[in-house]
Amino acid sequence: MNYTALPLLLLVTACGQVSIERTDGTAPEPEQVVSDPLPSWNEGPTKQAILDFVAKTTTDSSADFVPVADRIAVFDNDGCLWSEAPMPPQLAFALYDVKRRAEADPKLAKDPMVQAAVKGDLGKLAAGEHHDGLMKILAITHSGMTVDSFNVRVRDWMKTYQHPKGGSGLAGATYQPMLELLDHLRAHDYKTFIVSGGGIDFMRVFSQELYGIPPDQVIGSSTASEFELVDGKPVLTKTMKDFFMDDKAGKPAGIQMHIGKRPVFCAGNSDGDQAMLEYTTIDNPLPSFGMIVHHTDSIRETAYDTHAPVSGTLITAKEATPQRGWVLVDMARDWATIFTDN
Amino acid sequence: MNYTALPLLLLVTACGQVSIERTDGTAPEPEQVVSDPLPSWNEGPTKQAILDFVAKTTTDSSADFVPVADRIAVFDNDGCLWSEAPMPPQLAFALYDVKRRAEADPKLAKDPMVQAAVKGDLGKLAAGEHHDGLMKILAITHSGMTVDSFNVRVRDWMKTYQHPKGGSGLAGATYQPMLELLDHLRAHDYKTFIVSGGGIDFMRVFSQELYGIPPDQVIGSSTASEFELVDGKPVLTKTMKDFFMDDKAGKPAGIQMHIGKRPVFCAGNSDGDQAMLEYTTIDNPLPSFGMIVHHTDSIRETAYDTHAPVSGTLITAKEATPQRGWVLVDMARDWATIFTDN
Repeated sequence: MNYTALPLLLLVTACGQVSIERTDGTAPEPEQVVSDPLPSWNEGPTKQAILDFVAKTTTDSSADFVPVADRIAVFDNDGCLWSEAPMPPQLAFALYDVKRRAEADPKLAKDPMVQAAVKGDLGKLAAGEHHDGLMKILAITHSGMTVDSFNVRVRDWMKTYQHPKGGSGLAGATYQPMLELLDHLRAHDYKTFIVSGGGIDFMRVFSQELYGIPPDQVIGSSTASEFELVDGKPVLTKTMKDFFMDDKAGKPAGIQMHIGKRPVFCAGNSDGDQAMLEYTTIDNPLPSFGMIVHHTDSIRETAYDTHAPVSGTLITAKEATPQRGWVLVDMARDWATIFTDN
Repeated sequence: MNYTALPLLLLVTACGQVSIERTDGTAPEPEQVVSDPLPSWNEGPTKQAILDFVAKTTTDSSADFVPVADRIAVFDNDGCLWSEAPMPPQLAFALYDVKRRAEADPKLAKDPMVQAAVKGDLGKLAAGEHHDGLMKILAITHSGMTVDSFNVRVRDWMKTYQHPKGGSGLAGATYQPMLELLDHLRAHDYKTFIVSGGGIDFMRVFSQELYGIPPDQVIGSSTASEFELVDGKPVLTKTMKDFFMDDKAGKPAGIQMHIGKRPVFCAGNSDGDQAMLEYTTIDNPLPSFGMIVHHTDSIRETAYDTHAPVSGTLITAKEATPQRGWVLVDMARDWATIFTDN
């Protein structure tokens, strides 16, 4: 593409923020040519569609201009901002943490589901309509402790994480092209949110560091916490009460609960994201954009869609893509780089 | 107070934001004297305590400096940002809306609680441990419709609102000193949130316009919404499921659910705010500030604390104030102006 044709000039202002100034319509001088905001995206229709949408919705004179207050962008996390193959990092955390606990608690170690978790028998944990084994492991590792103590455990575990095809630490699992997309949207005054089936408290530990998204802009599956003064000090304890599953139809409900506004930009990668893609793009009075990250790269990452043993499948959302006008991102074709080089 | 003694100089930068630059320690030149950021607050220890806290937590070289990411400020709404006397505006909305519905629905009009609402018999509605009458009126007026339709109803009603001692429209019920405080905190990179027992969807209709607080920074009592495609179009319907009461111990829980961080600044006005004041200020590793708006002005507003027929009482939180170091705002003494002049 020809960047000099863009009617925008990115200027870093004195206050360190990136803001937009329209030029007078003439092509910018050579020394003003902007750098590529999405260098990890290969040139082609996918990248162009993203750049065009951001440009047209943030250019004052555009018929598709979207006011700043309405620039809400929502992103799934697992398989969209970071890799969920071979398993979502939160599951790796739960298995790590339950193993650590079982080693210190012989009674816990005798529980059949804990034994399945220690062995890494995901099939047994996920069996049954309600995934009782998995829910038990989640309850053990995600409730009954203070919020502060949970945060410390996640932080300790993070240092040990290693993605098999990415880098070390949690940052090693993140997708460089998506980090660039988040930055590009924010540079154009979009407010970026995570809307994930993952645990809200889990993601908040690293959302700012990994994605530049503050904890209050993270939406996820959640349970209630309980407040009390213990020995005169405030204690907030994680429980398993009021479980909310931020997946499928739960995602628009979660968006309403936490944002209270309809998004205009939505990125997902599985059928679990279809409802929020529909909510964002169908019959929206404002211009909107839906995109699906399609895992097509078996060499640099893992290729999957209709079959995804642990992660969510991509079947109906992919089928709906042409009718809905969503953009299907072909990771093998569209992404020059997959993983963040940390 | 002597502003020239402040070690801060407010500068409006080229990008329109207010930022802080420390001077070299010498008194500023006369032409650099800053304007009062809290003109509706009378000079005195209350105003000084607020200015001092904001200055010390946002000055790089201060021992009490708080990083921008941790500058979380939470505000109760009813009786804190706007008047809840003679009744919280949301209750006025519910009574207005149920009356409108009863006029169009003879069957509904026969319901004893609806009749009590039409008559304005708050005693009957609030009777009983679970306030069954009030809950019924809330269910009728706050569920069973789409989010969009609810928003339209609130907007239509807003135009009719008139506070008996304030101005017209909802803005007429807001407290000018608190609007200045919100602005002052935001000018120092505090992120401001509402944390209210009021309905989350109700407050979001006007939070940006009235307080400069976007919908995603509003926390309140809530119920679940349900998403579905109806005739191929996305519909989000308000229900009475998963009722969450954002009051008392629910406030720290609501803060965790929506913000995921401990605040460092908290303002309330009743015992319903005590838990979030405790959560903000007790044993917080960061500098923190708690304040309570005390309704002492029977002439310009309404004086109440231990007795508050509709609104929340202020008894235990007031008693705890000296021990906790919270600042008690005496409306009659500390506020030069009460209501926003719109």
